[in-house]
Amino acid sequence: MVDVAPDRSATLVHVGVVRSDPRDPIESRLATIAAGLRAVLDEHRPSVVAVERVFAQQNMHTVMGTAQASGVALLVAGERGLPAATHTPTEVKAAITGYGAADKRQVQAMVARILRLDEVPRPADAADALALALCHAWRGDAAGAASGPLTPAQRAWADAERLARG
Amino acid sequence: MVDVAPDRSATLVHVGVVRSDPRDPIESRLATIAAGLRAVLDEHRPSVVAVERVFAQQNMHTVMGTAQASGVALLVAGERGLPAATHTPTEVKAAITGYGAADKRQVQAMVARILRLDEVPRPADAADALALALCHAWRGDAAGAASGPLTPAQRAWADAERLARG
Repeated sequence: MVDVAPDRSATLVHVGVVRSDPRDPIESRLATIAAGLRAVLDEHRPSVVAVERVFAQQNMHTVMGTAQASGVALLVAGERGLPAATHTPTEVKAAITGYGAADKRQVQAMVARILRLDEVPRPADAADALALALCHAWRGDAAGAASGPLTPAQRAWADAERLARG
Repeated sequence: MVDVAPDRSATLVHVGVVRSDPRDPIESRLATIAAGLRAVLDEHRPSVVAVERVFAQQNMHTVMGTAQASGVALLVAGERGLPAATHTPTEVKAAITGYGAADKRQVQAMVARILRLDEVPRPADAADALALALCHAWRGDAAGAASGPLTPAQRAWADAERLARG
């Protein structure tokens, strides 16, 4: 979670990873993830939630699990009345480094610099989450869904933009 | 929702479709779906929840949305402490008609016959949900996750079985 000022300067509020036991059944794992996300939302009360946009191009098993977890993250936002937005990894890389094909370590190092942290947040997923949050704050309304429901025309535009950036 | 006796005879308890407004943002739509599912679970208190297993073979956009909704269904089960199981459309068809390549209408007609209904439940999604519930009840523990968490060996077996049935 980050605080981003109108001049785009950013401060770290909270960073973490919700872990579930891979030996638990999927319904329990998703409940653990939801509980972890709710605890953070209730403690820090953000104004918007950003979730990575999942594509079905990689390993199918992984993608389905990731999509289910992203559905839970979006749900938790919706239940709190928070707008949610999704961004692709390419959009995140471009927003953070100015270069959509940047490697993961470049993005993570940049996140640490932007937030004036002495070290790159660990694990990598935590740094990726901060990159996503910064990406969302910086893209703002232009990326769609930054503040409340879109009109159908805004949504069509945002979708077209996303496809173009893919 | 169905009641299935040890002799495999089945009775309709409840059938319905939770609808969300396609113009709403995804986080609101998922919250609507979760609320609808919770209301039904709290009214009828089933002992297990079955969810269609989603594959990433069809239209990507649709699949991701379906996977997110299925994540929400699994979550709602997990939060109620209910075991959840997933079955592929092929498994459902095979369980209901004895033929994995049966067409949708054959499956739906069979559902009406099994439950002694005068008509096929509408819309088609509602009939499909009943077919899934019957499939789960009939496959029982052999299909995995019918009653509580599986041991790792049971899960490996259930996964292998699912892959084999595809």
